[in-house]
This record gives sequence, C-alpha cells and structure tokens, in this order.
Amino acid sequence: MANDCILLVAVSLISACQQAYFAKLVGYARKKYKVVPPAITGTPEFERILRAQLNSVEFHTVFLVVLWAAGWFFNEVIASILGLVYIFSRHKYFHGYAESAKARVPAFNLGVSMLSILLGMSFLGLVNCVADHYFDVDVMKHISKLF
Amino acid sequence: MANDCILLVAVSLISACQQAYFAKLVGYARKKYKVVPPAITGTPEFERILRAQLNSVEFHTVFLVVLWAAGWFFNEVIASILGLVYIFSRHKYFHGYAESAKARVPAFNLGVSMLSILLGMSFLGLVNCVADHYFDVDVMKHISKLF
Amino acid sequence: MANDCILLVAVSLISACQQAYFAKLVGYARKKYKVVPPAITGTPEFERILRAQLNSVEFHTVFLVVLWAAGWFFNEVIASILGLVYIFSRHKYFHGYAESAKARVPAFNLGVSMLSILLGMSFLGLVNCVADHYFDVDVMKHISKLF
Repeated sequence: MANDCILLVAVSLISACQQAYFAKLVGYARKKYKVVPPAITGTPEFERILRAQLNSVEFHTVFLVVLWAAGWFFNEVIASILGLVYIFSRHKYFHGYAESAKARVPAFNLGVSMLSILLGMSFLGLVNCVADHYFDVDVMKHISKLF
Repeated sequence: MANDCILLVAVSLISACQQAYFAKLVGYARKKYKVVPPAITGTPEFERILRAQLNSVEFHTVFLVVLWAAGWFFNEVIASILGLVYIFSRHKYFHGYAESAKARVPAFNLGVSMLSILLGMSFLGLVNCVADHYFDVDVMKHISKLF
Repeated sequence: MANDCILLVAVSLISACQQAYFAKLVGYARKKYKVVPPAITGTPEFERILRAQLNSVEFHTVFLVVLWAAGWFFNEVIASILGLVYIFSRHKYFHGYAESAKARVPAFNLGVSMLSILLGMSFLGLVNCVADHYFDVDVMKHISKLF
C-alpha cells in the first residue's frame, strides 16, 4: 500500500507545509502592519494577505480530495505533477494577492485549471474502475491499445 | 484497495465539487453586492453567503474524516448514502442562509445529525475492529447471527 | 488495510470531534456575547473565540496530512501519541485564547512543535521508503541494528 502512493504523500506534505508557511506569513503581516490578534481587519495590505491565506485553506481539502482520487484511480505521476503545479499556482496567488487584489487572478485561474483537470482525471478513473469492477470492462486498457 | 472505496471516493469528490461551487457563489455575491476583495464585510446578504461558505469549510474535514471512518470500519454503502444526505443538507443550508440567518437552522441540524450518525458508526466499527484484532471477537458477526 | 491504521483513525476521529466542539463553543459565544449570525465581529471575547476556532480549522488539514504520513511511513504508535498531544495543545490553545490573546501562545507553540516532529517523521519515513523501493536499502532496519 505505502509504496503505491509515495508521490501523493510527498505532494500532500509539500502542500501542508505551504499552508503552515502561509499561516506564518499572516503572523509576520500582523507584526508588520500592527494588527493585534484577534483582529481580522486593519490595513488593506494585511486584509489581502489574510484573505489569500483563508482562500488557500478553503481550497485545501478540495485539492487533497481530487489529488488522491486522480492519483489512485487514474495515474499517480500525472496527478502528482499537476499537484505540484497547483502548489506553485497557490504560491503565485498568495504573493500576487499580497501586492494587489488584481494580481491574484492569473494564478487563481491556473490553480482552478489544475483542480479541474484533476477532477476530470478522477471522474474518468472512477468510471473506468466501476466499468472494470461491475462489468469487467477495462476502458483504459482498450484506450491504451489504440495507440 | 481502490475497489473497496469507489463509493467513498465518489461522495468525497461530490463534496469537493460542492465546496468549489460555494466558493464560486461567494465570488458571484461579491459582484452582485459590490464587495471588492479582500473585504469580508458589506451588505448583510453578502455576509450571510460568506459565512455559509466558511461554515461549510469548517465542517468539511470533519465530514471527510467521519465519512471514511464509517465507510471503512462499518459499512461503505450506508456511509455513502448518509454522506449524500449530508451534502444535500449543506446545499439547503447554504441557500437557506443566503435568504435569512433563520432559514439555515433546519438544514444545519440535518447535517449535524448525519455527522453524528457517521461518527457513531465509526465508533462502533472501530470498537468491533479492536475487539476482532486484539481479542479475536467479531461483534458484528455475532449481532448479524441474531437476526 | 483497516487493521493497519486503527490508531490513526481513532486520533483523526477525536480531532474531528474537537473541531465540531470548537464550532459549538463559537455558537455558545454568539449567544453569550449577543453576536447575531452572520456577524463575525462584536466583543473582543467573541472575536478571540472565533479566531481560535478558525485557526484550528486552518491547521486541521495540515495536522491530518502529517499525522497519516508519519503514521504510515514511520511509526503508527508514535504518530498517534504525538497526534493526541497536538489535540491537547489545541484544547489549551482554544481555552487560552478565550481568556486572552497572550494566553494562547504557549499552547500554540506546543502544537507547532508536534506538527514539526510529525513532519520530520514523515520526511524520514518517506526517504526510507524511496530508498527501500528504488535502491533496495532499508535504512530503518540498518539503524535499528545499531542498537
């Protein structure tokens, strides 16, 4: 079991570190812009950084679910690479948002694209798994034979 | 392994899509009520929609943990059906909250009931698994023999 | 499979219950300090309790990822014990924060230490797994032979 998901675990750990790192950057922003906890409003700079973190938290479970579903049911290597691109997009998103609300948009869209592809892979893999399990038809094998 | 949790993965994917959908609805609400990011306050309508999303985020990890524990240790089909009811309750909760703070309560309570049942199933399944593993007593089998 | 992770599932369930409990305490605080939903500001007492919950939500996925990675790839018992200490630290953090912003710091640091150790365990376990899988070298076995 453990050997089958080394890459997925590695990508999940990197994304967990990124979440902790974002939380740390919010802590630094609190000091820099003198926003004493538990306040969640203050300068626009601080509010953008806080929103950037919270948005990443909101999407973290979504990311983990589609990453693992795509990795398990479709292809672990492809899912892991897309996962790394998603983590990179979140990095750009966070630092873009810290600069201006507009600068977050391209990276956000890249992240959503990655999630969409991972979701599509999960769906295909799941359909294939159901077809294989219940109707004894391995669609993926048939497709790979065509090439 | 993969075959043992098709339903749980499917329900998890649906709940992940729902989370992304809620995030999108908050985006629409920002445009509709002219609440420019990163602001988190504005009209009461917008604030209710944002809170509805955040509350769903807060409960998403709780949901995933009890769904998988109940599905693995008790019964996958029952856990998946309860999971779908939970997702439905969140749908009603979100749209109820968007209308008024009061309208969210019945759906919220339905969701909490689902989480409670899934938690109870997880607990029973876990106790059974411990009894089976360490004391070689399969309680579930004994119970099913009674009927 | 199920038998290999009883402890990790049990600890995950306890942490899920804790999250639900924190959400309930925020509900009580809303009543006590008369902060009507969807408001997220009010008395400083209420705002501290809300922040304590939100911070716990932010770290919940991080916790679950490092708990499972450390439990799977390093040692389930050690990971579960550290997980319990983390849950305890969150308990102290929440109730500390409810009293004053300063009182949350020691428990927060304890929690971060637990997450760091779990992350280190995950990393070591992952490296060992890669070395074992791709280079046929089981580092852990070599280390345990030294003692």
